[in-house]
Amino acid sequence: MKYTLITTEGRAKRAHVETVHGPIETPVFMNVGTVAAIKGAVDTTDLEAIGTQVELCNTYHLHVRPGDELIHDLGGLQAFMSWKKPILTDSGGFQVFSLADIRKIREEGVTFRSHVDGRPIFMGPEESMRIQSNLASTIAMAFDECPPALADRSYILPSVQRTTRWLKRCAEEMARLNGEERTSNKEQLLFGINQGGVIDDIRIDHAKEISEMELDGYAVGGLAVGESHEQMYHVLDVTVPHLPQNKPTYLMGVGTPENILESVDRGIDFFDCVYPSRNGRHGHVYTHHGKLNLFNQKFERDMRPIEEGCMCPACRRFSRAYIRHLLKAKEMLGMRLCVLHNLYFYNHLMEEIRASLDKGAFTEYKYKMLMQLKEESE
Amino acid sequence: MKYTLITTEGRAKRAHVETVHGPIETPVFMNVGTVAAIKGAVDTTDLEAIGTQVELCNTYHLHVRPGDELIHDLGGLQAFMSWKKPILTDSGGFQVFSLADIRKIREEGVTFRSHVDGRPIFMGPEESMRIQSNLASTIAMAFDECPPALADRSYILPSVQRTTRWLKRCAEEMARLNGEERTSNKEQLLFGINQGGVIDDIRIDHAKEISEMELDGYAVGGLAVGESHEQMYHVLDVTVPHLPQNKPTYLMGVGTPENILESVDRGIDFFDCVYPSRNGRHGHVYTHHGKLNLFNQKFERDMRPIEEGCMCPACRRFSRAYIRHLLKAKEMLGMRLCVLHNLYFYNHLMEEIRASLDKGAFTEYKYKMLMQLKEESE
Repeated sequence: MKYTLITTEGRAKRAHVETVHGPIETPVFMNVGTVAAIKGAVDTTDLEAIGTQVELCNTYHLHVRPGDELIHDLGGLQAFMSWKKPILTDSGGFQVFSLADIRKIREEGVTFRSHVDGRPIFMGPEESMRIQSNLASTIAMAFDECPPALADRSYILPSVQRTTRWLKRCAEEMARLNGEERTSNKEQLLFGINQGGVIDDIRIDHAKEISEMELDGYAVGGLAVGESHEQMYHVLDVTVPHLPQNKPTYLMGVGTPENILESVDRGIDFFDCVYPSRNGRHGHVYTHHGKLNLFNQKFERDMRPIEEGCMCPACRRFSRAYIRHLLKAKEMLGMRLCVLHNLYFYNHLMEEIRASLDKGAFTEYKYKMLMQLKEESE
Repeated sequence: MKYTLITTEGRAKRAHVETVHGPIETPVFMNVGTVAAIKGAVDTTDLEAIGTQVELCNTYHLHVRPGDELIHDLGGLQAFMSWKKPILTDSGGFQVFSLADIRKIREEGVTFRSHVDGRPIFMGPEESMRIQSNLASTIAMAFDECPPALADRSYILPSVQRTTRWLKRCAEEMARLNGEERTSNKEQLLFGINQGGVIDDIRIDHAKEISEMELDGYAVGGLAVGESHEQMYHVLDVTVPHLPQNKPTYLMGVGTPENILESVDRGIDFFDCVYPSRNGRHGHVYTHHGKLNLFNQKFERDMRPIEEGCMCPACRRFSRAYIRHLLKAKEMLGMRLCVLHNLYFYNHLMEEIRASLDKGAFTEYKYKMLMQLKEESE
């Protein structure tokens, strides 16, 4: 991997990343395809059409079904879902700690039950790396514990210390796997994850400690899980300066367009979030002037596209009135069109952010957008 | 409308139809978009890509929601769903007689309750024509009663006589509507519908009677509703010769690839059926060598496309293994890919039928296909 910092504006970074699966221009929003597909009937041909650079897939879900060994045998995730561009896989940790039943955390890892068939599964740092190596993603995430955002020092400190020990085991296992003959992607990258809740000194010490490990990139985890936006921005303010500037910085699971603008400003250049696809499936669509709820009666006869001038596959051809009708009639097509629009909106927002950084005009763009986004939104 | 018979082979017809919304090459399979959308998240951009010539929409469903007046005000169905090619609307009759609750049949028409909100609705020949005129489809279907296929003479005869009286009222109302200023498509076509259950003389007399009315096309209705395939083919054998050869002949709601091949051979050139989309949503996909159930375990590691050489959007990019995974994981994308494949298969089957007629080799093609289609199918 080669990370080239093209320009900065304040702490905001504009970079070009070369991976074994092709380039990534940052800041980038990764599109979430949990089980090797974006929810809302969106395929990889669609993703190419809406400017997706990186697809994110979920290790836990794919381990449970169809199984990472099967995906390995079929040539890895890229071959399985027919996507030639970069893929990031999460570690499975977040799902283990949030979705799975009857979990037991020990130094070795976590025991839990599959949400599909209830069978017991054990996952620790080595297991997570082996699964992600089987999936053969471009970027693997370290296996960490994601503690409750507002947990107190007595919970957070030992949790973060264990996450650090787990990170070392992840790095060792990944190095070993990348040297194995059977490994599909021998240049798989590993990003470490900073934790520490909203406790400044724990976040900072952890950021310094993991930065010394010379990983391929660094995520800030454990945010957008219950704390306020202000607390999240504060964590970024104190933490990101202690992560390497010349490597990717990834804010996991975030967020709204506003969150992204604020976080780019604080030095983040990788993002992912289920909002655009989840909101799309509920008929909530993004525009540069706030969100619309297409179920609203006022769109019944509105023959305008979701957003005038938008070049997404929905806006280029279909009206608010038609999409509203589809949503009301519970036709899958309504969801698909809204998801396509929303993902295009997010991908395009990142394009605008990159263009503004290229022109040295990010701050201006950020404040203009923050004003506009408030216009019709609640 | 101009119907040009290009060639025949036995009773099979190969024709070119010019409509105000563009050409139709027959034999043609119309793709069923009940509420102005193909079920399975398929939009009109997709339909263009898979060779759809005519989209069929359902009058009853669109009358109930979003309402035909609304669609009229927004410019008609073509504008509403962004489809520039021909559209056929059914009369609503079939749904009224099969879906709706608490119906009462009188000479004027039928009273029933909406399946959406239970409100009472009255529909007769004039109402059906007005709704279809509002929808502004290319081809409107006459309002008829579709009696149970195996009902006896004492039910069928008066029912067919009423259908004939209704047909005259339809033709008069359509002529009036096409002369109105507010009408969006003033060249809307009207197809009459032959009924008569499986009683030869009633079918024949009715075919002769409606043929004299000089309508734009003629459908054979009331089939594929419970009788055997052999009974259906027999009805076509005795009835179609009494319908005009130089006008479209449409077999409503039929059917399997085998049914289509046999019915083309009996002089039918328009078809529609929900099988390809409905089966696709259940993971049943068509090939030239029989149907596959993609839920079957044997496809778990099958990296071949649904059908080798198929140029549909699913087969050009995705494997049986991937689509099976999507179906098992209940991802909408699995349904979409199967529906796209099946509609492409049907549209392409009609292309092959037309090509074989053009070469004077339909009979040969028909028997080859009938043999092949049995190969893996149950």
